[in-house]
Amino acid sequence: MKRREFARSLAAAAAVAAIPSVRLDAALPRRAPRVNGERLNGWLTAISEYGKNPQGGVTRLAYSEADQAARAYTMQLMRDAHLDVSVDAAGNIYGKRTGHDASATPVIFGSHVDSVPEGGNFDGNVGTLAAIEVARTFAEQGVTTRHPLWVACWQNEEGGTWGSHLVTAESTSAERATVARSGKSIDEGIRALGGDPSRLATARLRTGGVHGYLELHIEQGGHLDRRKLDIGIVEGIVGLREWDVTIDGFANHAGTTPMNERRDAMLAAARFTEMVNRVVTAEPGRQVGTVGRIQAFPGAPNVVPGKVTCTLELRDLDDRKIQRLYDGIVAEAQTIGARNGTTFGFHEFVTHESALCNERVRTLIGASAGALNFTTLSLPSGAGHDAQNLARVCPMGMIFIPSVGGISHSPREFSRAADITNGANVLLGAVLAMDAADFGR
Amino acid sequence: MKRREFARSLAAAAAVAAIPSVRLDAALPRRAPRVNGERLNGWLTAISEYGKNPQGGVTRLAYSEADQAARAYTMQLMRDAHLDVSVDAAGNIYGKRTGHDASATPVIFGSHVDSVPEGGNFDGNVGTLAAIEVARTFAEQGVTTRHPLWVACWQNEEGGTWGSHLVTAESTSAERATVARSGKSIDEGIRALGGDPSRLATARLRTGGVHGYLELHIEQGGHLDRRKLDIGIVEGIVGLREWDVTIDGFANHAGTTPMNERRDAMLAAARFTEMVNRVVTAEPGRQVGTVGRIQAFPGAPNVVPGKVTCTLELRDLDDRKIQRLYDGIVAEAQTIGARNGTTFGFHEFVTHESALCNERVRTLIGASAGALNFTTLSLPSGAGHDAQNLARVCPMGMIFIPSVGGISHSPREFSRAADITNGANVLLGAVLAMDAADFGR
Repeated sequence: MKRREFARSLAAAAAVAAIPSVRLDAALPRRAPRVNGERLNGWLTAISEYGKNPQGGVTRLAYSEADQAARAYTMQLMRDAHLDVSVDAAGNIYGKRTGHDASATPVIFGSHVDSVPEGGNFDGNVGTLAAIEVARTFAEQGVTTRHPLWVACWQNEEGGTWGSHLVTAESTSAERATVARSGKSIDEGIRALGGDPSRLATARLRTGGVHGYLELHIEQGGHLDRRKLDIGIVEGIVGLREWDVTIDGFANHAGTTPMNERRDAMLAAARFTEMVNRVVTAEPGRQVGTVGRIQAFPGAPNVVPGKVTCTLELRDLDDRKIQRLYDGIVAEAQTIGARNGTTFGFHEFVTHESALCNERVRTLIGASAGALNFTTLSLPSGAGHDAQNLARVCPMGMIFIPSVGGISHSPREFSRAADITNGANVLLGAVLAMDAADFGR
Repeated sequence: MKRREFARSLAAAAAVAAIPSVRLDAALPRRAPRVNGERLNGWLTAISEYGKNPQGGVTRLAYSEADQAARAYTMQLMRDAHLDVSVDAAGNIYGKRTGHDASATPVIFGSHVDSVPEGGNFDGNVGTLAAIEVARTFAEQGVTTRHPLWVACWQNEEGGTWGSHLVTAESTSAERATVARSGKSIDEGIRALGGDPSRLATARLRTGGVHGYLELHIEQGGHLDRRKLDIGIVEGIVGLREWDVTIDGFANHAGTTPMNERRDAMLAAARFTEMVNRVVTAEPGRQVGTVGRIQAFPGAPNVVPGKVTCTLELRDLDDRKIQRLYDGIVAEAQTIGARNGTTFGFHEFVTHESALCNERVRTLIGASAGALNFTTLSLPSGAGHDAQNLARVCPMGMIFIPSVGGISHSPREFSRAADITNGANVLLGAVLAMDAADFGR
């Protein structure tokens, strides 16, 4: 484990004060308290028992028994941190702490504790437990804030950021009939967690009703780890669109159909896949494009495929760039189809617009990291997070810590204890800075 | 339906006589008899009732009830043609007719009556019933041959030319444990058809024991139909090799893994598929190459595939060309893998060497067609046939008739009645010419 000096220098404090766009008012203590990193990492070890897999990591699908057990543990940690624990109608857990201004809107910070099948011990857990540790540190060191603080544990992040979605947007019962990996529908899951789908309106967060949102998370790419940097300041959560692509040709006998008379859907799919890679990498930037699933019909070694279905996914922080790439891909697909008598059809089935982090929140995260002498990198989040939903109603920011090898959603997912402690301390400073900031309302 | 003149001109007779490599001795009648085309096409309509599908065509899987019913009908037609009917230990049906030379080896001709799932009414049936019609015509018109004539109906052609394989090669009980589409193993199927797997040796045909083999079949490509030609003279049955191809990369999050850090097995598979097409079409010839089946793992729209499996099939009349193409493909696959950190593995799971038609048999088929004023085309068979197995033990030849649009293995498979009658008459003439020929033993 690497160790770092946490002492805050006068020079760093001056650097924070010099950032003109953040007003660090009197509420920011001259010397910010520090979290108890040993305690926090102990909690992370403890929560890894819920849904533990024999080969390591956890399977803690939302609404499962393991999920509910981990949530009960989380609520106990919140109570130990002197937080006022409640479950809202959407099944999200809040641990609340009063501020000294009765009219102020809450600062919300947190993450989730559910996992993908055969997931790791850090995705979600780090952000949730670090948020509780920040609140406990405030309680122990007598720090009071102007705004109320709400530590959030959002339900069913891995199944599509459902908990944070339900409190920031309308939903229909038909949408909530979606069956999660646990086998329960969203509504059944909400009830299993102590929520009430018929009273979702009572849980809604609205613009003007939340001061700001912060989330600490492991970086699910390898940028920080590879470059040996301490803290990632997230620019935003990329937009994501997914299409089912259907390529129609004509199925034929692979032995008797000459090469120049084939309408081979598989050959067209191959040209399509290579073209997607070429189009996406043809311009500078961090956009990504993926063909992740494919099937050929009838799918026999001795039959020229008459039909292929595959998926196309595009992500970028700029939704207009996604649209431009997609338009280029569709145009080139038509040319590919014309070459061998095949036709392409596209059906979009997932659309997530990008969510930009608030520029002033990014600045105050940078100031918090700088005050601790941490190296930082500004980067987009290629993965989705609850923060993208909170951005609908308030200024939002995210803090990343390194994940070794950029591995996530795997038992091999690993973040070092020191990095977790660092992230929690940056979160602590950012919460205080956000509490002190005036976002112009 | 098109109609043709069948009258044989003196000029055509002279043309046959002028072909130097075939000795047409006194056994060939000056005026060959003609089959009863109306009767033959009536039988084809009648046999289409066995395993008939609601949407047309038949599903007559080997060893099924429909297959057994069609075989019973076939045996009755053989008896009506004064043939001596038997089922050998491998489950093949023979209808035998004595020749006037007691020491002569048999001329065998026939085909099969089983079908693929949702197959058509012509593949196999045309050759089997035309062979019976030829024998019946000989019986009715008092034609006797020197060699015995055996009309064959081979079992389970569509499942891998099993019946003809079992009588021309060794097999093990492990091989015959293969489960056919009907759900029965080969051995179970043999017993269901009246054969006896323990006595297969009694059914063996051996080199020197068969004078020659002829098979009439629909062309499963569209060459004859497209060029409006009457008869195809088959050059041989192409060799066929199939490989499972495994491409290993590294599965990763599609949102967080930059394009230049991916080891994307799907992209490698796409480049492979396009390369196969390029390599196969880069040189003149009738070789074909197909990627017919593909699967990506884990196969989610939002995961860069870490593994892809697909198939490669190559066919050509020249086995050395198949090997050369394969070597080129493997070399290029390694280059493709090196481009993005993926590796290719090849596992061959089907190998059929090509089977060339006997050159003198091809000549006598051409002479028979020429004597009837039919237009002809020499061409390879891209599909497999029982004839490829008979080539192991005797001179072999195949006659093709047009299949409209080149469609086969489909309810839409269709051959015109006049073309079927033409094919049967060419078969009749070829049987007589083969009976008269001395292949040098």
